[in-house]
Amino acid sequence: MKQFLSVHDVSDIDALVQKALAYKANPFQDKTLGSNKRIGCLFLNPSMRTRLSTQIAAQNLGMEAIVFNVGAEGWALEFADGAVMNGTSVEHVKDAAPIMGNYFDVLAIRTFPSLKNREEDYSENYIKQFVKYAGIPVVSLESATLHPLQSLTDVITITETFKEKRKPKVVLTWAPHVKPLPQCVANSFAQWMTAWGNADFVVTHPEGYALDEQFTKGATITTDQDAALKDADYIYVKNWSSYEQYGQILCNDQSWMLTSDKLKTTNNAKVMHCLPVRRNVELSDEILDGPNSIITQEASNRVWAAQAVLASILHG
Amino acid sequence: MKQFLSVHDVSDIDALVQKALAYKANPFQDKTLGSNKRIGCLFLNPSMRTRLSTQIAAQNLGMEAIVFNVGAEGWALEFADGAVMNGTSVEHVKDAAPIMGNYFDVLAIRTFPSLKNREEDYSENYIKQFVKYAGIPVVSLESATLHPLQSLTDVITITETFKEKRKPKVVLTWAPHVKPLPQCVANSFAQWMTAWGNADFVVTHPEGYALDEQFTKGATITTDQDAALKDADYIYVKNWSSYEQYGQILCNDQSWMLTSDKLKTTNNAKVMHCLPVRRNVELSDEILDGPNSIITQEASNRVWAAQAVLASILHG
Amino acid sequence: MKQFLSVHDVSDIDALVQKALAYKANPFQDKTLGSNKRIGCLFLNPSMRTRLSTQIAAQNLGMEAIVFNVGAEGWALEFADGAVMNGTSVEHVKDAAPIMGNYFDVLAIRTFPSLKNREEDYSENYIKQFVKYAGIPVVSLESATLHPLQSLTDVITITETFKEKRKPKVVLTWAPHVKPLPQCVANSFAQWMTAWGNADFVVTHPEGYALDEQFTKGATITTDQDAALKDADYIYVKNWSSYEQYGQILCNDQSWMLTSDKLKTTNNAKVMHCLPVRRNVELSDEILDGPNSIITQEASNRVWAAQAVLASILHG
Repeated sequence: MKQFLSVHDVSDIDALVQKALAYKANPFQDKTLGSNKRIGCLFLNPSMRTRLSTQIAAQNLGMEAIVFNVGAEGWALEFADGAVMNGTSVEHVKDAAPIMGNYFDVLAIRTFPSLKNREEDYSENYIKQFVKYAGIPVVSLESATLHPLQSLTDVITITETFKEKRKPKVVLTWAPHVKPLPQCVANSFAQWMTAWGNADFVVTHPEGYALDEQFTKGATITTDQDAALKDADYIYVKNWSSYEQYGQILCNDQSWMLTSDKLKTTNNAKVMHCLPVRRNVELSDEILDGPNSIITQEASNRVWAAQAVLASILHG
Repeated sequence: MKQFLSVHDVSDIDALVQKALAYKANPFQDKTLGSNKRIGCLFLNPSMRTRLSTQIAAQNLGMEAIVFNVGAEGWALEFADGAVMNGTSVEHVKDAAPIMGNYFDVLAIRTFPSLKNREEDYSENYIKQFVKYAGIPVVSLESATLHPLQSLTDVITITETFKEKRKPKVVLTWAPHVKPLPQCVANSFAQWMTAWGNADFVVTHPEGYALDEQFTKGATITTDQDAALKDADYIYVKNWSSYEQYGQILCNDQSWMLTSDKLKTTNNAKVMHCLPVRRNVELSDEILDGPNSIITQEASNRVWAAQAVLASILHG
Repeated sequence: MKQFLSVHDVSDIDALVQKALAYKANPFQDKTLGSNKRIGCLFLNPSMRTRLSTQIAAQNLGMEAIVFNVGAEGWALEFADGAVMNGTSVEHVKDAAPIMGNYFDVLAIRTFPSLKNREEDYSENYIKQFVKYAGIPVVSLESATLHPLQSLTDVITITETFKEKRKPKVVLTWAPHVKPLPQCVANSFAQWMTAWGNADFVVTHPEGYALDEQFTKGATITTDQDAALKDADYIYVKNWSSYEQYGQILCNDQSWMLTSDKLKTTNNAKVMHCLPVRRNVELSDEILDGPNSIITQEASNRVWAAQAVLASILHG
């Protein structure tokens, strides 16, 4: 693997999933693969699970991980070509990235969207410039439009929990939230589900919340949540802000919150969420504390997803 | 040892002290005990000595230590059961702690009191919820009411410096400060001194500063500092805010500051403090820079206290 | 080597440069030199390259590196002797530094000038107090007036790129900036160039920007940039605020920005800068993106400079 920015960088999703599950069974089987190798984890936006799971994955492979929180440590990057840098940004990505490329063997980056300018966010200009100028493999720790380590984790979690011969029905449902959130997790989950092809995949959301079609092509899309949830094996709950009216909150309808009542028509569906979750806003306590939630297992799988990706990159 | 939240988790204080002193003599004797083990150090409040000494102790045992500063890294936790999370807290401890429990082998946590609601602070609700939901051994790096790693350090320091056959007289004296501070260090020192039983233990403070009796039971308590200090072998200087008028500063009397003059009636007492210390407010320069201070030695022993505790937990 | 605060701590510059280049050729040749040794990296001011390169250098030598960001982690130090600490500073360097000296084998510190009080800044009071009270070797990661790891890097970079038998002409030129910056990098480069003696060294700047003579003694100094640049082999571009009218910006003349046009009279000069650089303010895009810039190579050499210094200190 040369980089990990989206599902397009993965030649065989199932093989990568099996690799991750092998690490879960035996975390230290490749303890020397990363000897004398170093990963830089650059956070332009904050992180908890992603940061910890990436550090742990690197350590399991014997790699040194160095974390750098750009926000907290006051280092404003410039991304505009030809900028006269007489404002607040202190360094251009053109100057910073090549040095990262010399200091590290792998560069992992988190960079969120502005949610103000759709064209700019969807150009993925920030992470692409790191790829262009760093000259080493880049791993997305969530970018403006995608969160591939989360999605790989989700495929791992579905794979390890679904024991039947048929394809599971997997439903991605929008949920309310108090803040306008990126579309990344939803986009990415849709992209991986459709690329994977081993699920009947349905997306449901209120009017005005359609995701970018490049990610949902091949999915069934409906604004009728009840219809979507019927016979579901997995429900992936996630808020996102509008793609059409970019970055806006168009709906506060609490009836979109997933509750135990809504599980009744499902196939005793397992409930997933990428975390952090707003309890009793996105998901009810009864679901989060009940037997259908596999959210802790899902979050724990973040380590094995990261480890499989890093190992694939170390193998080239 | 299953956890380390207070002296009640220690079956044999002297054995733990000797273990720590053995690590001081030979820091790397258990260099492989923590191989492939990982400690997460979660700071809901800032730290210097505690963070560094815990990291060093873990490294001495061959454990990986991962530090996570929640404040600085913007991750507000919710602790209220049944909360509708439509405010500023982004994640419930119920969701965060189990994942920590999957990512780490030991979880070390610092969480301060609010000093606004005594009942809530003294319930130790925050750290107890981590214990409840993490499912792995939890080590307190200072909680709302106690600071057991500091107190173990203090017993280590008294043990290694007192060479006589009799019990030393140990005095905990209140000192002025400019800010309302927690009662943790004072509570915890009293709890350990009374549980240890190898000292004549006296607590002295102005009117209104009595500590919670659950911690001072068995100690001599007086508001007469002069009488308390007479013949003292050790003086532990510490400010705390009022427990009775909870979190309030009731006294600014600078005559409570420990000065060289006050050492005259003592048995050439050694002076202790947990640091950080406000010079010429809590303690005079002449004491801090003079021969009676064992404060640097005390702070340095933080490493060996942490190492003994982590090793005991790794041994189960 | 006992400490690394300035060029005066180096007995043989060329030997240190060769040591660094040997590490560049074989980074892990001393992988066990730092076993069971620990470096504390204390940042009173933010850092990117310095922090990363020091961590990497330590890891290459098998040392544990622990980073502590004082600013971000809210720990205000007091440096005044005799201070009554009833204000905002929470701990005196006299109390903090000895503990660092017990926790670590080497202490690396970054501390910037105030740019308000020249006498105080140029006394280097902050880093000197750490040296005085820590009791272990101290490495400057940039202090109030000097940046020796950067300067060593610069000598390394000139050494490895200059292949002729004669001395190169090296020009340090002032450049515009939007903020008042320390004189550290310029002072230090001048100090190292004059101590090294293997270059014809010229400093050029506008009126009012003369550096402290203790650092530039032996250099040719001129306010005529064109004359300075003529036949130059290396141009070191750097802004600094006025030393005479201390901390002030006296000149915004954009004609001091280095552009490709100005390279015409040089000996196809290589262009250096310590980074971060304000594009199109200090240096034009065409230079930074063109063949004369050796800035990425220079920044990458920070690792080998730090590794050579740490190894020298570990060797005593």
